Amino acid sequence: MPKTPLHCPFCDIIRGAGEVSVCYEDAMAMAFMDIQPVNDGHVLVVPREHYERLEDVPREVGLHLYEVATRLIPAVQQVSGTSDLNVVVNSGSAAGQDVFHFHVHLIPRRADDGFDVPLPFAGSEMPDRTRLDAMAARIIAVLRDPMRTASSSRRPGQPARAG
Amino acid sequence: MPKTPLHCPFCDIIRGAGEVSVCYEDAMAMAFMDIQPVNDGHVLVVPREHYERLEDVPREVGLHLYEVATRLIPAVQQVSGTSDLNVVVNSGSAAGQDVFHFHVHLIPRRADDGFDVPLPFAGSEMPDRTRLDAMAARIIAVLRDPMRTASSSRRPGQPARAG
Repeated sequence: MPKTPLHCPFCDIIRGAGEVSVCYEDAMAMAFMDIQPVNDGHVLVVPREHYERLEDVPREVGLHLYEVATRLIPAVQQVSGTSDLNVVVNSGSAAGQDVFHFHVHLIPRRADDGFDVPLPFAGSEMPDRTRLDAMAARIIAVLRDPMRTASSSRRPGQPARAG
Repeated sequence: MPKTPLHCPFCDIIRGAGEVSVCYEDAMAMAFMDIQPVNDGHVLVVPREHYERLEDVPREVGLHLYEVATRLIPAVQQVSGTSDLNVVVNSGSAAGQDVFHFHVHLIPRRADDGFDVPLPFAGSEMPDRTRLDAMAARIIAVLRDPMRTASSSRRPGQPARAG
């Protein structure tokens, strides 16, 4: 059972201690309205248990959250009156995660609503093909043999994780 | 079989007619390096078949893309040297979709990399609880009975989709 931190606003909501507009719940997942929506209908899907980051979410929970999001999306599209949508996960502080209880944003979108996910990324260095190929080759190597690759690319004194 | 449009850059890539750095492929899905990465290791996961939007992707294909993304994420984290990550789907032009072949961004993130998903949304009107509750109630109603809700909220002369 994951440990619940002392001050997780989503854990408060899930145990009934916070104001919330719930639009879906089951034994494993809950979905509720974002209090700072990009547009009406902006929903957050969360696991009931406290998992901080994407990689902390167990496989069966992640799959269930995917199923719940997939069920919710047509409803969000219908009530918001737009079928354009962003699905966003921010995992980790450098990725802009604000509440450290894993959550998936379902964001109905309208032209000129003021929100913007700046992709393609204008600030990109646009690496040459050699560099892109090298990254692809490294990913392929990790997929083939995650353990060996982690240790073989490790430098002395460095933890395996950083490989 | 979905119709391939005349000029889809991702269909070009998938049939071998475009320069690409592939990091994963199977019978249903492909993943390759974004040519305008936020950081090294920025990957796009796509279905081989041409589906434009999120709601066009068949259930079994969507589930497979989820599985592929889930396999790729630890590899992306390892080769990029950061575990912070955004997962982003832009579906529809108002949501910033640029290539109209469904794709999932896996974006490794570093502090001060210049990319930003502006959540929580500073431009939000911050609706009162009554409005959030009303949206949640409408979503619950649609989940209970998608067909009836679509037609009952339809005004004369309006297509059911817009309900």
